[in-house]
Amino acid sequence: MSNALAPARTVAELKELRQLTGDENGAQRVAFTSTWLKSRAWLREKLQELPVEITADPAGNLWATLPGESDRSLLIGGHMDSVPNGGWLDGCLNVLAGVELLRRINAHYQGKPPVTIRLVDWADEEGARFGKSLFGSSACSGSLHLEEARGLRDRDGIALPDALKQVGITFSEVKQAGAELRNAAAYIELHIEQGPVLLDLNLPLGAVLGTFGVERHAITFRGQAAHSGSTPMNRRKDAFLAAARMCPEIYRIAERSGNGVCTIGSCTTKPGIVTSVVEECRITLDQRHLNADALARMLQDAREASERFAREGGVSVSWERLWHIEPRPFHPELIELCDAAIRETAGVSLRLPSGPLHDAAEMAGAGVPTVMMFVQSLHGISHNKIEDTKEEHIELSVAAFDRLADKVIAWIVAGKSNSRP
Amino acid sequence: MSNALAPARTVAELKELRQLTGDENGAQRVAFTSTWLKSRAWLREKLQELPVEITADPAGNLWATLPGESDRSLLIGGHMDSVPNGGWLDGCLNVLAGVELLRRINAHYQGKPPVTIRLVDWADEEGARFGKSLFGSSACSGSLHLEEARGLRDRDGIALPDALKQVGITFSEVKQAGAELRNAAAYIELHIEQGPVLLDLNLPLGAVLGTFGVERHAITFRGQAAHSGSTPMNRRKDAFLAAARMCPEIYRIAERSGNGVCTIGSCTTKPGIVTSVVEECRITLDQRHLNADALARMLQDAREASERFAREGGVSVSWERLWHIEPRPFHPELIELCDAAIRETAGVSLRLPSGPLHDAAEMAGAGVPTVMMFVQSLHGISHNKIEDTKEEHIELSVAAFDRLADKVIAWIVAGKSNSRP
Repeated sequence: MSNALAPARTVAELKELRQLTGDENGAQRVAFTSTWLKSRAWLREKLQELPVEITADPAGNLWATLPGESDRSLLIGGHMDSVPNGGWLDGCLNVLAGVELLRRINAHYQGKPPVTIRLVDWADEEGARFGKSLFGSSACSGSLHLEEARGLRDRDGIALPDALKQVGITFSEVKQAGAELRNAAAYIELHIEQGPVLLDLNLPLGAVLGTFGVERHAITFRGQAAHSGSTPMNRRKDAFLAAARMCPEIYRIAERSGNGVCTIGSCTTKPGIVTSVVEECRITLDQRHLNADALARMLQDAREASERFAREGGVSVSWERLWHIEPRPFHPELIELCDAAIRETAGVSLRLPSGPLHDAAEMAGAGVPTVMMFVQSLHGISHNKIEDTKEEHIELSVAAFDRLADKVIAWIVAGKSNSRP
Repeated sequence: MSNALAPARTVAELKELRQLTGDENGAQRVAFTSTWLKSRAWLREKLQELPVEITADPAGNLWATLPGESDRSLLIGGHMDSVPNGGWLDGCLNVLAGVELLRRINAHYQGKPPVTIRLVDWADEEGARFGKSLFGSSACSGSLHLEEARGLRDRDGIALPDALKQVGITFSEVKQAGAELRNAAAYIELHIEQGPVLLDLNLPLGAVLGTFGVERHAITFRGQAAHSGSTPMNRRKDAFLAAARMCPEIYRIAERSGNGVCTIGSCTTKPGIVTSVVEECRITLDQRHLNADALARMLQDAREASERFAREGGVSVSWERLWHIEPRPFHPELIELCDAAIRETAGVSLRLPSGPLHDAAEMAGAGVPTVMMFVQSLHGISHNKIEDTKEEHIELSVAAFDRLADKVIAWIVAGKSNSRP
């Protein structure tokens, strides 16, 4: 094995994996299925060529540990699992880039790097089967709500604990995975962007500032059904009018917030017939921002707007929180290192937040200094078989990610990690 | 039997009918059901006390004819059928007021009025079972589309022709009912308003200018599904945004039109999930106006607005016509007579258009000089068991309607009818 990093090998291995675990509809590595187990067996074969210790933790996360002169560990993360009919890069690029880094670091340091290097393949990042994403990393970080997770069922009615038992995981013990973070000094993760920002700017790579906090609500306006022919316009209590006015407003709210995003993803109307004014209209609102205060302000602005539109339209409004998560800003010094690694590799970099969540958010939340690197996505699309990235950009990302690893190793050695998991 | 009109008797008969054909959920006289047949048998008993000829035409409309000195006929119309769980007045007030008018006219002219008086109970005005309203009157007017009607089925899959056969009607012959209009010189109809206009102005009665023309369309905006977290606001092709902007716009369009109305009654979104920008949004738009040019302008305004919002939002838009009907203005001289009859009875009148359709629209469309009188609705609500009108207003409406009949008889006798059915 050569000392040199071989990013082209990562591209070749991604294609090999696609061949093994995809079909004409895309990747099929849904967590806890036989195809997912097949992808992990294939990953183990790759890892067994290295002097790493391969272990599974109580949550089903797979760890490959290259012991270093210090127990202080650099964690490199990713996930082999995909959504059904998924893309060829989401999650497994991270893991296979990590494998390539392990090879290069092992060769460079002749089997004994200054700090311990650990690659982790998180279990069920996507949550495609049980609707709970970040399963393995949240069990490890400690944020998993055990009682909520126990009740989750897939579409066939199989409970999560029973599905886990099938693959040798004891549900009640999954949070013992937290012991893996004992010596964690830093966590890094490479991922496709899944959005159009780098593509629009014609940039290959970006340093990620953190993952957005999310506020997710259902908003219901209630007015009065009335005949479409006999009810004058000024006598209407039109629930759809108030809901509709929310949509241009959330664009203004997002704009005022700087780089937040707001989405009305669904709208339902009752009675929902052509001859009646809408009595009840329910919309869902998803709001995201990297800054907790800005997110709270976006939510407050939306609440006030909804109440104003309701008042002006003679209808009532009620809010129901569906879900929320705090923003997870990444480590400022690691963001600097990531930005530098990208500039040194590609000449130019961009700092951008991540709208989607990633396992890295769990590591940041657990107090492990964390950063992610994004590589450009074509079409700005993921979770779909058309998900794609130029091969030259994949190779560039592996090279920049390797450079980041070197910088983070030096940073840990210099005693700069303030890890507190 | 006294010579005098007895409006209180109409109220008593309405209550008698409610007792006979309603339950705790409201009126149950759905056309072609046993309860509807029961209501008609009860109506026949009332009519048989008069020297009228009672006949059914080939469309199932029931006619009671009081022959006059001339064959020229004043038609008085209504319908015994109701929606399921309907109100106690919609349709049957018209018929029972007509019965009371027949009694008064018969007594006044000692069995021989100057023109022939004909009361008609139209079959299936509501279209509650087969979704086609104005069945009997449109068969009579000739506007019924026979091939479309042939394919109509109720929720149990029973075809309209088969249901008609059960009550002795031969589907292929229904348009022969048109022969009934041979000597029609005028058509008058009393109806509850079903809206809040008279209530808001604290007026008991109004003269109806005609029925609104209706343009009914489905409008579909198509954009691009995109992740709610990773897609910047300025990169979105949000189908819901374009659709939502239509709603305040239709209020402006209706306002510009004078007294037209526009309603978005339903909205559906695809994929319709909280984490995705809306790819496809379909809304229904119902537009109504008494003036055909104004209606056409409202439609054109809405089309142009939809195209503008689509263009500005980077989405596409397509329109599908669901249904339309021309405005049916009533006869100017009969509107004058109606207005005068109301003023003479109640002291004050209002001229207003009808948003909902009525059998009178079919008569106007067939060239029979037509007018309707509205009586105030409480709550502005109909098609519901809470539908109601003050008893004093019901009595006032019968008195004004009788006065209108007298005026129209004189108008026919004076040779002013330009009927051309």
